[in-house]
Amino acid sequence: MKVVTFGELMVRLQPFNYERFVQANSLEFTFGGGEANVAVSLANYGLDAAFVTKLPAHAIGQAAVNSLRRYGVDTSMITRGGDRVGIYYNEKGASQRGSVCIYDRANSAIQLAQPSDFDWDKIFEGVDWFHFTGITPALGANVVEICLEACKAAKAHGVKISCDLNYRGKLWTRAQAREAMTKLCEYVDVCISNEEDAKDVFGIEAEATDIYGGKLNAEGYKSVAKQLADKFHFEKVAITLRESHNASENGWSAMLYDVASNEYCFSKKYELKIIDRVGGGDSFGGGLIYALLNGKSTQDAVEFAVAASALKHTIEGDYNMMTVSEVEKLAGGDGSGRIQR
Amino acid sequence: MKVVTFGELMVRLQPFNYERFVQANSLEFTFGGGEANVAVSLANYGLDAAFVTKLPAHAIGQAAVNSLRRYGVDTSMITRGGDRVGIYYNEKGASQRGSVCIYDRANSAIQLAQPSDFDWDKIFEGVDWFHFTGITPALGANVVEICLEACKAAKAHGVKISCDLNYRGKLWTRAQAREAMTKLCEYVDVCISNEEDAKDVFGIEAEATDIYGGKLNAEGYKSVAKQLADKFHFEKVAITLRESHNASENGWSAMLYDVASNEYCFSKKYELKIIDRVGGGDSFGGGLIYALLNGKSTQDAVEFAVAASALKHTIEGDYNMMTVSEVEKLAGGDGSGRIQR
Amino acid sequence: MKVVTFGELMVRLQPFNYERFVQANSLEFTFGGGEANVAVSLANYGLDAAFVTKLPAHAIGQAAVNSLRRYGVDTSMITRGGDRVGIYYNEKGASQRGSVCIYDRANSAIQLAQPSDFDWDKIFEGVDWFHFTGITPALGANVVEICLEACKAAKAHGVKISCDLNYRGKLWTRAQAREAMTKLCEYVDVCISNEEDAKDVFGIEAEATDIYGGKLNAEGYKSVAKQLADKFHFEKVAITLRESHNASENGWSAMLYDVASNEYCFSKKYELKIIDRVGGGDSFGGGLIYALLNGKSTQDAVEFAVAASALKHTIEGDYNMMTVSEVEKLAGGDGSGRIQR
Amino acid sequence: MKVVTFGELMVRLQPFNYERFVQANSLEFTFGGGEANVAVSLANYGLDAAFVTKLPAHAIGQAAVNSLRRYGVDTSMITRGGDRVGIYYNEKGASQRGSVCIYDRANSAIQLAQPSDFDWDKIFEGVDWFHFTGITPALGANVVEICLEACKAAKAHGVKISCDLNYRGKLWTRAQAREAMTKLCEYVDVCISNEEDAKDVFGIEAEATDIYGGKLNAEGYKSVAKQLADKFHFEKVAITLRESHNASENGWSAMLYDVASNEYCFSKKYELKIIDRVGGGDSFGGGLIYALLNGKSTQDAVEFAVAASALKHTIEGDYNMMTVSEVEKLAGGDGSGRIQR
Amino acid sequence: MKVVTFGELMVRLQPFNYERFVQANSLEFTFGGGEANVAVSLANYGLDAAFVTKLPAHAIGQAAVNSLRRYGVDTSMITRGGDRVGIYYNEKGASQRGSVCIYDRANSAIQLAQPSDFDWDKIFEGVDWFHFTGITPALGANVVEICLEACKAAKAHGVKISCDLNYRGKLWTRAQAREAMTKLCEYVDVCISNEEDAKDVFGIEAEATDIYGGKLNAEGYKSVAKQLADKFHFEKVAITLRESHNASENGWSAMLYDVASNEYCFSKKYELKIIDRVGGGDSFGGGLIYALLNGKSTQDAVEFAVAASALKHTIEGDYNMMTVSEVEKLAGGDGSGRIQR
Amino acid sequence: MKVVTFGELMVRLQPFNYERFVQANSLEFTFGGGEANVAVSLANYGLDAAFVTKLPAHAIGQAAVNSLRRYGVDTSMITRGGDRVGIYYNEKGASQRGSVCIYDRANSAIQLAQPSDFDWDKIFEGVDWFHFTGITPALGANVVEICLEACKAAKAHGVKISCDLNYRGKLWTRAQAREAMTKLCEYVDVCISNEEDAKDVFGIEAEATDIYGGKLNAEGYKSVAKQLADKFHFEKVAITLRESHNASENGWSAMLYDVASNEYCFSKKYELKIIDRVGGGDSFGGGLIYALLNGKSTQDAVEFAVAASALKHTIEGDYNMMTVSEVEKLAGGDGSGRIQR
Repeated sequence: MKVVTFGELMVRLQPFNYERFVQANSLEFTFGGGEANVAVSLANYGLDAAFVTKLPAHAIGQAAVNSLRRYGVDTSMITRGGDRVGIYYNEKGASQRGSVCIYDRANSAIQLAQPSDFDWDKIFEGVDWFHFTGITPALGANVVEICLEACKAAKAHGVKISCDLNYRGKLWTRAQAREAMTKLCEYVDVCISNEEDAKDVFGIEAEATDIYGGKLNAEGYKSVAKQLADKFHFEKVAITLRESHNASENGWSAMLYDVASNEYCFSKKYELKIIDRVGGGDSFGGGLIYALLNGKSTQDAVEFAVAASALKHTIEGDYNMMTVSEVEKLAGGDGSGRIQR
Repeated sequence: MKVVTFGELMVRLQPFNYERFVQANSLEFTFGGGEANVAVSLANYGLDAAFVTKLPAHAIGQAAVNSLRRYGVDTSMITRGGDRVGIYYNEKGASQRGSVCIYDRANSAIQLAQPSDFDWDKIFEGVDWFHFTGITPALGANVVEICLEACKAAKAHGVKISCDLNYRGKLWTRAQAREAMTKLCEYVDVCISNEEDAKDVFGIEAEATDIYGGKLNAEGYKSVAKQLADKFHFEKVAITLRESHNASENGWSAMLYDVASNEYCFSKKYELKIIDRVGGGDSFGGGLIYALLNGKSTQDAVEFAVAASALKHTIEGDYNMMTVSEVEKLAGGDGSGRIQR
Repeated sequence: MKVVTFGELMVRLQPFNYERFVQANSLEFTFGGGEANVAVSLANYGLDAAFVTKLPAHAIGQAAVNSLRRYGVDTSMITRGGDRVGIYYNEKGASQRGSVCIYDRANSAIQLAQPSDFDWDKIFEGVDWFHFTGITPALGANVVEICLEACKAAKAHGVKISCDLNYRGKLWTRAQAREAMTKLCEYVDVCISNEEDAKDVFGIEAEATDIYGGKLNAEGYKSVAKQLADKFHFEKVAITLRESHNASENGWSAMLYDVASNEYCFSKKYELKIIDRVGGGDSFGGGLIYALLNGKSTQDAVEFAVAASALKHTIEGDYNMMTVSEVEKLAGGDGSGRIQR
Repeated sequence: MKVVTFGELMVRLQPFNYERFVQANSLEFTFGGGEANVAVSLANYGLDAAFVTKLPAHAIGQAAVNSLRRYGVDTSMITRGGDRVGIYYNEKGASQRGSVCIYDRANSAIQLAQPSDFDWDKIFEGVDWFHFTGITPALGANVVEICLEACKAAKAHGVKISCDLNYRGKLWTRAQAREAMTKLCEYVDVCISNEEDAKDVFGIEAEATDIYGGKLNAEGYKSVAKQLADKFHFEKVAITLRESHNASENGWSAMLYDVASNEYCFSKKYELKIIDRVGGGDSFGGGLIYALLNGKSTQDAVEFAVAASALKHTIEGDYNMMTVSEVEKLAGGDGSGRIQR
Repeated sequence: MKVVTFGELMVRLQPFNYERFVQANSLEFTFGGGEANVAVSLANYGLDAAFVTKLPAHAIGQAAVNSLRRYGVDTSMITRGGDRVGIYYNEKGASQRGSVCIYDRANSAIQLAQPSDFDWDKIFEGVDWFHFTGITPALGANVVEICLEACKAAKAHGVKISCDLNYRGKLWTRAQAREAMTKLCEYVDVCISNEEDAKDVFGIEAEATDIYGGKLNAEGYKSVAKQLADKFHFEKVAITLRESHNASENGWSAMLYDVASNEYCFSKKYELKIIDRVGGGDSFGGGLIYALLNGKSTQDAVEFAVAASALKHTIEGDYNMMTVSEVEKLAGGDGSGRIQR
Repeated sequence: MKVVTFGELMVRLQPFNYERFVQANSLEFTFGGGEANVAVSLANYGLDAAFVTKLPAHAIGQAAVNSLRRYGVDTSMITRGGDRVGIYYNEKGASQRGSVCIYDRANSAIQLAQPSDFDWDKIFEGVDWFHFTGITPALGANVVEICLEACKAAKAHGVKISCDLNYRGKLWTRAQAREAMTKLCEYVDVCISNEEDAKDVFGIEAEATDIYGGKLNAEGYKSVAKQLADKFHFEKVAITLRESHNASENGWSAMLYDVASNEYCFSKKYELKIIDRVGGGDSFGGGLIYALLNGKSTQDAVEFAVAASALKHTIEGDYNMMTVSEVEKLAGGDGSGRIQR
């Protein structure tokens, strides 16, 4: 099975351990980005996953490409050109100190890309699934346009489309997001969101959930999923539920709403000791796409996706490094953390 | 606003991560010391903070100076001379294994310093606040003398004085501490202590608190604060309350007693996942001085100071690397540890 | 007092922090192995501890020897020869992700060793205690033979023998284990096991304990200990009790059954925040041997052994780096993790 | 253009900088092997390069695969199975201290592979060039057999074959090498050798060259090339000429003999400051194959190949990380080492 | 004595040791830029050195400020604002492989700065010397304007001005450079150049010097210096002479032309084993300014400046970490590299 | 054969690579000292080598002991006690920048040791050779006294004594050195010196040698050796000849004068590319003692010692990590630095 994801791949610069930038003298040099992270997840599950973006021809662009190839992602559809790779500086938090993310991604190659940079008909040949997130159209009106072309071409090729709403307030306003995402969601089959995103992007909200307090209102989430599905005729809506106890410990679970069967399936909840939470949501998306492409039931799909993302929180870097059997082992109930020897 | 702190700045040698010295092959090379840590806190809050000490002219002394300049501390009043920079070897504990600290600070430049090494009248020109801790006079009778001269000069210049009792049994006896601190506390306006220090230094104690068990008796702390204030005519007494569950997890809170208003304000309590607890108390001092200099209320001041030190426990090294807005965000209630992006 | 342990010492290759092998670019290069770990524990407690094995003459074999000498283990009885040092690749787990151990130990020098490689009469001269684990005979029929010779020689020299059952399903089958261990246990005085090992090796089990769920049934453990002791006429049987909450947090305790006095002594239970759990069981063995050799009571012995191994879980690498006084401090009740300064 | 190489890919474990194994506590974890190194060179030059071998399915085997994918090598023809990845421990020398290489490669997956593990007809579909070295048949009689099958299939598909003689005395005897290589060289079109290999494998030698003294006798090399070509009807013979002044500084050049034109083309000689000399010969092979596939003249081909390998000596790890334009810039004469900015 | 320098301070991202970006997984995180480097040199010599630029208020901007404060540079005149800190990716070359520098500095805070961001009258209060390089006006027309205002204000305050021509072909064309630098050089008293810069910027050249060949024509340099001085009425012109043998070894010397005395003083030539050559020219500028401000003779000044920069080539990072006495020791003749103990 | 050496073992703190202390954030944590270095050399050659000193009982003292045990040095004669381990901060030079060594060794345990701390009769039981250097008596009058007792006891036990003059101007004056060393040299059989030491300690000099210029006058060295031998009735005098071209490249050779045969044997001269030159002289001493104890001829002995120390210059840290066969291979002529594989 073949999946294509489209978005920005950034340099991720992060101090070692829990250092702050103002005291750091060296940095981890990895790469990440919502859709690229999903592609890596899927390649690690053994799928044929291609990532589409635009990256400069120079050594930093090449290093970005290499980071994907290392894990088996097909990079042959990446357009090479432009001047810079976007960067995000990430400082890992702990306990009462939240992580800090500083974007330096303006004017990256993909942000300045034009529709003519991509030949979607060629890209979608033989493809089963297309995934993007709300971060990509947030890069600019030109990229909204590219996303639209991609969605139309995907539909024309009979490709399923999933979208993670992923609102980024540092990239665009709620009004801009709503306008663009309303257009794009028309093409989407499977929507992934959390409560904040649904509210930020579409003003859809459940009653009385205190996001910052970290308490969750499960019933409210059903309402959000239903409203989203009703508005855009999604086939499925997944809502992830993060309870932020503090920067080191989170509760993590999700719900998957299947419109056809009218099932609302809630996953197990994991209490996470966090090693690295960046890419946690993306690993959920990767798990979900894998599960749905492999015909898992609604309940099994949400369990697989949540287990995948629970495991991601223990992995350093944006990319999730788990195999299908490892995810299934956790989804199937062994979270005891025993050594296998 | 301008603050001066006075004490010893030591080389801090610590194995990486949780290694023990007997297995270590490289060490973190940072610097720290109670009063220097306070100066860094204040410089990071944007205050004009100067640190006074004596350090050798050689490269290690220079590295010590550089470590302070990096964070904006004014080092122009540091006397250069002497042969060695004191050292403390620190081994980070975890879970049931406590941290181990080995001092190698005898005969450091500041420990052998003479009163003539410091021109306090010049140092206190235009200064608003002077801070020192009980560690400094513990370095020797000559340093007690220097502290006394500093206190007298500070009073003569109308400078507020704060002192953290900080008893160090490896440096002097309780009797020596009591004699010296009794003289010095006459000049002090704001006293910072914990229950152990009050008892070790002045024999002041509350009833039935089991320090090692980590259970706290809030009422008892009011009594300790009152006894301290009564004895030395302090304006304010802060008592920090650490509950040592184990080396990785502590409860952390404080109380500030304002004599004029007779208020005893208790802060929120934070449950800390500890990255580095050295300098935790100093960061409380830094937060308190900032808050009081900026006219915060008694309650707000203790909340700011406790939030500042809660955050310090997540920072590697002695120095607290937080900004005012980051501290205020936590003090104001967001300890969810969410990423800002 | 002099102790000899016998087994395999392997290169331990582990990614830094929580990296997975597929993303790692450098590795920790340490050494470990059940019996060698016990020898290091004992050398760190000040005993005269010798480790017996076979290691190649080349630099990697020498590095293995050096790793033991560094901590004072007597390596003069190690036979040098053969081609390779066994390797185990270890990936540290966290939270819901368990550690992964990949063995590459086939055809190591010790695995291909012959009885003629060891002169047990010379080795046991003046020795008080001999320790091995079920991992050693699992290396092959030739090594079972060597173990038998060692046990017989030990008995002939009046040396006490302890054995940790330590079943390794990747090395041999349950049937092979039962056959070999049944022969060897005839010579053993002190048996160390956990519930799984007793069942895997001898089919001995208590009722209704769910190993993977991490709930423990204390009564059942008494039954296991009694059955073991009855079967092999052991003097003492120790059962370690690990509750695997997840890969980062375990409960840890043990029971020591003294046959002569018919005492079943349960230790305190420690809730561990794990830094490195490999060698956790070995450090229990080391603590137990030290305690018994030093005439501690049954209760004190199990408390010492459990405290030793609780502390090991905070130490990076296979080897336990604790002193007697540090272990006794914890066994005596101070687990508050306070800094000593 | 498509190239296939076949051989063993090993874990390369090397201490950092110039440490020796007996003092090392961590290791670089990279991968290398003669034919894999050539594949990486070619992929970095933009060719479609596939590497064929057998590697275990576990994480270490996967890490080996990832190391190739990262640089764009096609790994889809690698057979997965077997238990272990071969290892070579490498200690970098300097000045008067030579590098030390300890092999731990016995019983690796490829060493135990069978002819049925590879479908050469499928592998050579659409392929232009096949490359292997004398190290591969040295792994065992079964691998000689696989090499023979590969050569026959390559010839059947009209694929050019190059072979680097690369005698490894630790793997087989001169007699074994001569027998196997004599059979294999019948199929070879382009032979790469140095003076030692030609002598060790085929007993072919020039007069009066002192290998260890590092002085070279250019005329003698022509004689060696001619003898090799005459014996096996090679189209081209390349002889690399290393002058080992010491472990940090080498002279490096080569000669390419084109039989058809009877040209003996000597390259420029580079005086190298060595960063890492492992893979130096392989990078020559990679450069030569690229140059010949791209129709360069005999002189240009040898210049390209030598420049490529000169640059390799400045690259850490086995793999050569140079682009065509970088190699051509050096081959074209700019070895001034100026910064480009 | 007080010196002000003005320019851009960039993040410098460099792989460790000799890695290339395509294989790197972590990076050194330091800072550098021509004029900032000069300021650090001068602060390390004990002068009061201020650096002027514009940097964002966020943590990366703060880290840049910290990097300067650490070495005692006065950063109080830095304007805070804008979005990004410029970056340069630097790959260290060796032997035949030259270093590679990739700029990612477009749209940095200083590049988008406006004249109103700087109050030059305030900045030059009490200042003795102002230094900038040709890199700064190359950032854009707005920055040319700022430079002009700075030069005019400097002249108005009687401040000496030095300029290092430093042509950067990646930032502007020769025509743009000539136009801007012609205007700016009217205000300059001391000009620093090398042969390439003089030709690139002003078309001034000596006869028959082959830059890439690394051979130098000393007479020709006198001619260049004289032409420069004649054209702009400089008081002094310094020409640096680098002989690039390869990326690891350079010859390094300089000439200083004093117009008033008509002296052409050539320095000693150093044969450098290069640790890090970035900032080599800047350290010459720093040495020259120090020497001239301290009244050294023309010959002594050029010797000090060349010795300073020879030493810089042994220092990791952009900043030169030498003291006056260390530079004078080398300038005075001890280049034996003996340990002082 | 059994050798005892006596002196101080210090913590060696050194920045990584070529960093200076003022920019360093972490340090290598190793140990070294003249006589300890010799003991490690000898243990690595397979001799029974014991090192005698006094070291604190705490973790840093233990780490020092461990560093020796790792390489097989017998540490059982080390007296444990005192407060501190001496430290030397070492900054590695390169090219024109010399290494810098800052001592922080005052008041170390050995410096404050008393004669009663050592039982020399017990120490010298069964010993063949005793070695010390001029650094040890330089630690204080008490240590001179201990050295004298050691020398007398050694003579009483028929132990050969060697001494490396090793003058350290930072520890004592020439006059102090002359007085103490004159007394001690009465007992010495084999003296090791270089031209500087002979002059500094005893005022013995050859004509017209310019130490700092790095040119050597071989004839003069014979004269120095003869004068030394005549004055103290040494059996043998070794003179090491270092030509300091710069901090990265030295010439290295030696001469051994055998009084009985009146032979002056000059070794080969090695041109060294230096990785770490600290301990270079000590490794010569270690090589010489090994060679003489093993009955090598005068010429072979000096060749072995010089080859050993040439190799040491390529080893990181104070300790020489070479085997006898590696040294003999170089002494026998293979300095080509070829890989062995």
